[in-house]
Amino acid sequence: MRILVLGGDGYLGWPTAMYFSSRGHDVHAVDNYFRRRAHKDAGTDSLTPIGGSLPERAETWREVTGYRIDVTEGDLTDWSVVEPLVRDFSPEAVIHYGEQPSAPYSFITREHAVFTQYNNVVNTLNVLWAMRDHAPDAHLVKLGTMGEYGTPNIDIEEGYIDIRHNGRTDRLPFPKLPGSFYHCSKVHDSTNIQLACRIWGLRATDLNQGVVYGIETDETKIDPRLATRFDYDEVFGTALNRFCLQAVIGHPLTVYGAGGQTRGYLNIVDTLACVELATKNPAEPGGMRVFNQFTEQFAVNELADLVQRAGREFGLDVRIEHLDNPRVEMEEHYYNAKHTALLDLGLQPHYLSETLVESMFSAIGRHQDRVITTAIMPKTTWRPRERARVVAE
Amino acid sequence: MRILVLGGDGYLGWPTAMYFSSRGHDVHAVDNYFRRRAHKDAGTDSLTPIGGSLPERAETWREVTGYRIDVTEGDLTDWSVVEPLVRDFSPEAVIHYGEQPSAPYSFITREHAVFTQYNNVVNTLNVLWAMRDHAPDAHLVKLGTMGEYGTPNIDIEEGYIDIRHNGRTDRLPFPKLPGSFYHCSKVHDSTNIQLACRIWGLRATDLNQGVVYGIETDETKIDPRLATRFDYDEVFGTALNRFCLQAVIGHPLTVYGAGGQTRGYLNIVDTLACVELATKNPAEPGGMRVFNQFTEQFAVNELADLVQRAGREFGLDVRIEHLDNPRVEMEEHYYNAKHTALLDLGLQPHYLSETLVESMFSAIGRHQDRVITTAIMPKTTWRPRERARVVAE
Repeated sequence: MRILVLGGDGYLGWPTAMYFSSRGHDVHAVDNYFRRRAHKDAGTDSLTPIGGSLPERAETWREVTGYRIDVTEGDLTDWSVVEPLVRDFSPEAVIHYGEQPSAPYSFITREHAVFTQYNNVVNTLNVLWAMRDHAPDAHLVKLGTMGEYGTPNIDIEEGYIDIRHNGRTDRLPFPKLPGSFYHCSKVHDSTNIQLACRIWGLRATDLNQGVVYGIETDETKIDPRLATRFDYDEVFGTALNRFCLQAVIGHPLTVYGAGGQTRGYLNIVDTLACVELATKNPAEPGGMRVFNQFTEQFAVNELADLVQRAGREFGLDVRIEHLDNPRVEMEEHYYNAKHTALLDLGLQPHYLSETLVESMFSAIGRHQDRVITTAIMPKTTWRPRERARVVAE
Repeated sequence: MRILVLGGDGYLGWPTAMYFSSRGHDVHAVDNYFRRRAHKDAGTDSLTPIGGSLPERAETWREVTGYRIDVTEGDLTDWSVVEPLVRDFSPEAVIHYGEQPSAPYSFITREHAVFTQYNNVVNTLNVLWAMRDHAPDAHLVKLGTMGEYGTPNIDIEEGYIDIRHNGRTDRLPFPKLPGSFYHCSKVHDSTNIQLACRIWGLRATDLNQGVVYGIETDETKIDPRLATRFDYDEVFGTALNRFCLQAVIGHPLTVYGAGGQTRGYLNIVDTLACVELATKNPAEPGGMRVFNQFTEQFAVNELADLVQRAGREFGLDVRIEHLDNPRVEMEEHYYNAKHTALLDLGLQPHYLSETLVESMFSAIGRHQDRVITTAIMPKTTWRPRERARVVAE
């Protein structure tokens, strides 16, 4: 199968490219190094050393496994990159991770909010237009986020909900309550993709993914130069990954607010399995299918407690600190999100365990000397400080 | 009251600026002449001659009425325009018409789709950010569109719907099914505005407006140089306005497809009254209020029949032609949209009548020699022609 991986230099994109390549698919990975530049600008970095540029990573992959991954260093907002790529490669599946992925990033300044929405919306519009013109039968597998739904007081369904209202019924897009300008950008994408499927007969699967944790996949373990990035900073690091690193270096776990915030989580190896399942079982033309891509839900406090327990086993003294929440979000709320579609397709989840956390401690420990400790505490706030006071009154 | 009118050179923006100015408010109008440029590029034009640049229109207004409208010629995607404007004028209300307003325009090419979303989303993000920093207590009155909802098979509520699901309930944003990249851009705005209200405590009213018809308001009638624009071309013209012009010049009425497409409509004078009612009764801080702004719903066929009947009275021989629908939309569907919020605030609707249509015939007749007939037939299609065949199979 010809598989185009957009954002192929990223935390998930690079392992995805290797995963499909190792299974004999014809993989083309694209990236503009946005994340690398953002880290450089902020003085932060991946915990794991990255094995060179994308062409260098692909070259290592070929050297070590004999499989080839073709690459393009280019920006998806640039039509002169996207059009020839889709036209000439003629993908059967487009796995789309190619977006600015951080909620805090979208609040650093106005420019960051505008960049996030411009970048993510235009990338996806370009991909849709290129598929319309050059690959109308390809299957778009788009990474969305569970954060599109926010935390409604009802069960979250997979993309659509049957609504009975005044004696009539319809199946409609599930209402969204995104909590950041980044999450809004993903809602915008969903809206645009759904339109494109409806009017152009394209086929797409929107994978509303939970928070991913983990540092290794079967392919990253083959050679240290094939490692994927691992972010632990306040901007790109996510809850469990951050906590594991904090535990290893003796930093208190940074729980934002009360810690009752509940979200869906999944292991990075399950991300790859989910994306493969979606790709092997493509959506029908003319509609956007939505899967909620996570395996378990946890409150932040539960994760912190788990990391503390695993730390004790591992010989680490882990403290938990509740910080003023830099975000605006409910800290105690109802949360019950459906996630059966991928299980029905055959997903075998790797559930979270103390053992898994301890293996993350080990992997993190190998790169402990690279940790930039100033990157850990949250600096980016959802509200300007003066306004936070006014709103709270 | 200090009122900032964004898009103050437009069909509705200019009459709105005069309306508030004539009532003693301190009005500042902003426009980048996007619509004028788009017409020039397409070789089309407003039926009514426009009385010069925005500063010249404001000068005429001062001359004729003694009231002052301040103006800025500038682009809302440009922060160096938006920030000083909001900071220095310190508006109490921001009436936001400042967007690319055409669904067909967003389908002309990929560039037009991207421009539409970039322009509309970034304009609104800039306005929100400027309000956050410099006018956090101002009331944003944002023009949305009924087209955000599409045509669901249930009653359309005003922005939010109470959903009971698996024994729990929540009041959530009404699900949206926008039918063009333009309509999507308005959904994106709604999502962003709602977030900004929630996290920054801003106040906003989203006016989901129906299709506006009419050519004159009390203020435009004062002097021919104060006329507002009147678009009848396939890109910027809307259903009833187009039909009235077609009737006058003896062109068959261009009904797209079966003509059962039902939408909400309102008279331009009611637009001004609605915007005033929203402005006089501001939303509470911390939430986005939504009003459905229209007074009656009609199927396209009903409008065509009405224009034909009024034409007969007026001595015009009006023919109706059903064209292949250039859009992708349901041509027979359920439609029942609530619109009581503005009536509850005191709106006195001007309902559509043969008399009103005849008065439009007269106003149009005065400028009949300016009609560019090549601009009338639809050229812009939602689907590329080859793809339309594939999708229909």
